[in-house]
Amino acid sequence: MIQNKLITLLSDFGDKDVYVGVLKGVIVGINPQSAIIDLTHQIPRQNISAARFCLLNACSYFPSDTVHIAVVDPGVGSKRRGIAIASNHGYFVGPDNGLFSGILEHFSPIAAVELTNPQYWLTPHPSNTFHGRDIFAPVGAYLASGVSLENLGTSIPLESLIELASKKVEIFGETIEGVIQYIDIFGNLISNIPGNLVEGKNWYVSMEDRIITKGKTYSDVALEEAIALIGSHGWLEIAVNGGNAQTLLNIQQGDPIIIKIK
Amino acid sequence: MIQNKLITLLSDFGDKDVYVGVLKGVIVGINPQSAIIDLTHQIPRQNISAARFCLLNACSYFPSDTVHIAVVDPGVGSKRRGIAIASNHGYFVGPDNGLFSGILEHFSPIAAVELTNPQYWLTPHPSNTFHGRDIFAPVGAYLASGVSLENLGTSIPLESLIELASKKVEIFGETIEGVIQYIDIFGNLISNIPGNLVEGKNWYVSMEDRIITKGKTYSDVALEEAIALIGSHGWLEIAVNGGNAQTLLNIQQGDPIIIKIK
Amino acid sequence: MIQNKLITLLSDFGDKDVYVGVLKGVIVGINPQSAIIDLTHQIPRQNISAARFCLLNACSYFPSDTVHIAVVDPGVGSKRRGIAIASNHGYFVGPDNGLFSGILEHFSPIAAVELTNPQYWLTPHPSNTFHGRDIFAPVGAYLASGVSLENLGTSIPLESLIELASKKVEIFGETIEGVIQYIDIFGNLISNIPGNLVEGKNWYVSMEDRIITKGKTYSDVALEEAIALIGSHGWLEIAVNGGNAQTLLNIQQGDPIIIKIK
Repeated sequence: MIQNKLITLLSDFGDKDVYVGVLKGVIVGINPQSAIIDLTHQIPRQNISAARFCLLNACSYFPSDTVHIAVVDPGVGSKRRGIAIASNHGYFVGPDNGLFSGILEHFSPIAAVELTNPQYWLTPHPSNTFHGRDIFAPVGAYLASGVSLENLGTSIPLESLIELASKKVEIFGETIEGVIQYIDIFGNLISNIPGNLVEGKNWYVSMEDRIITKGKTYSDVALEEAIALIGSHGWLEIAVNGGNAQTLLNIQQGDPIIIKIK
Repeated sequence: MIQNKLITLLSDFGDKDVYVGVLKGVIVGINPQSAIIDLTHQIPRQNISAARFCLLNACSYFPSDTVHIAVVDPGVGSKRRGIAIASNHGYFVGPDNGLFSGILEHFSPIAAVELTNPQYWLTPHPSNTFHGRDIFAPVGAYLASGVSLENLGTSIPLESLIELASKKVEIFGETIEGVIQYIDIFGNLISNIPGNLVEGKNWYVSMEDRIITKGKTYSDVALEEAIALIGSHGWLEIAVNGGNAQTLLNIQQGDPIIIKIK
Repeated sequence: MIQNKLITLLSDFGDKDVYVGVLKGVIVGINPQSAIIDLTHQIPRQNISAARFCLLNACSYFPSDTVHIAVVDPGVGSKRRGIAIASNHGYFVGPDNGLFSGILEHFSPIAAVELTNPQYWLTPHPSNTFHGRDIFAPVGAYLASGVSLENLGTSIPLESLIELASKKVEIFGETIEGVIQYIDIFGNLISNIPGNLVEGKNWYVSMEDRIITKGKTYSDVALEEAIALIGSHGWLEIAVNGGNAQTLLNIQQGDPIIIKIK
């Protein structure tokens, strides 16, 4: 019996071209009943770290059998593997380049395969430059239609999957050190420090000679002032009321952030 | 019996992040059969006036039981109310900040509730910064699935809803004074003057020392020349054939426009 | 019996306004079961040539009864015809301005009609500036719902349809001359030279005093170096590994490209 699991798409393809439209055409060509939702296609080009963050923070809001297809793939056409992962928070399909390392770390991965079975590709001779269309979209469509993970290729150990090198949060007494892992369109600086490390405590942020005090929502400070809070993703974040924290504080993805507990 | 009314989304979230994808995940988590259409997510940040215009002009093209979820919400986390409105042109869900004042003015609102029933929220403890995800999207999904308006919270008088302060059209003899209420991506200047005030008459626009003559379509004037016409929304608008009226005339949202009837 | 063919949309409307949302509202107003996929709405404004390329390269990935609605329409409101075309690769609805000339050239068109039957329009008195909403979207929705092509208007000869003037590929001995027909968001320069003209041969690109050697995928050259390859669309293309060929080589749409076979 044909199933019809929800499919999401995430990529760095942008929206100027028809690349995303083509992925969807391939998917509905395999299963015309497919329901497809875009997570985002505006990942900064080849920024695997931003893609990892976006995927991790979006997928937990979807039904737990959703198939997430993610294509940020600087190594397309090289030897990097194409993979599919089953977890308690859904299925994941894309290149093995660290994109899924947030999933591996925070959710419970169950099994993984390398995508070696061309029966579920668009063509047995995929292009060298667009595996999204030729491999990942069709594999995701078949997975959503009820094909089992093991049919898609060769089983591989979860430990063999690429983990993105990333700075871990460190705690020294009353000091917590982390990094800015993502900056959103509003210029909010989202750290890798989970909110539960500071919840219920008295704390502030020390960042580049500045003290930023904590609050609950943007309007707790005056317009154009910075505030530190537990953001909607659950990470500690720095925002500017009615303004842009990235511009005001001149911070880039990867920059350090220090929390002091009083 | 579960219903399945169409849902639309409008916001200032942009498309760089997964915020819109998360709204959709929450909606399909409540009703997997949901049909969701994006109106736009590129409302200029916190520009309630532009959101009011876009929502007003789009929703009349949708079936009259559509649920429109609109989130431009500078006051999120403060005391502003979350509301749902029933009207003859569909249901509306979002913050009570003036976003819906075009609906209240032009369509026939029937009833409104303040969203006080956490049974229809994503969580009884919503975040302080993302009520779109935690309250408006789930409430909209339940409304689309057949939950009745009165179950969503406390009934409130329609007169208590926030109206956006906006300049009204004024008529002095043969002169009509209005403002530019919206500027689209093409730079077309859309006034708040309804086309039926001038239809069948002889008229022209007087704007910043310029006379702009009327026409029926863009190509009625030479390339790069300005023309005044009744736009597709039904409002009097100024365009430039093959060009950008905003740039050419150096006009901003809110600037005055004067019509002279001959 | 109502049918429910897939519908795609392509336009130069951008995503700032609600124009695309309105098209979708009109479509679901006619058939609430419609499945709609966006190809792209970021065609450079009024660039019929780019629209022709995008439509041609996307539609072959869709089911062969898909209805493609395409609206890049600088002549809206003038005498240009609105048309619908049936082909072996789907149905096409939009203005007769050359937008469909890729389809006419490469696929097998079967029949065409001029859209003269107002029964299938949103209103018998369409606006002068938005035929996408008033004519093309509703006609496409009816076509997808099972209305036959001939009911939509007057049959017209396929030879009467507007062909976009475009430079053809020319072959002189070991030299192939073409043009850059499209530049994508990554700055990849996509020529009008089909890959099968050079496949299996030894060749290189000569372009503005530069020699660009051929490869199979982007990473065949060092970072920031140019490479020529058969792109995923099947056209000969020039890319820069990890960079932007348009910027690096300073090339515009329409610029010439020369291939030398060794």
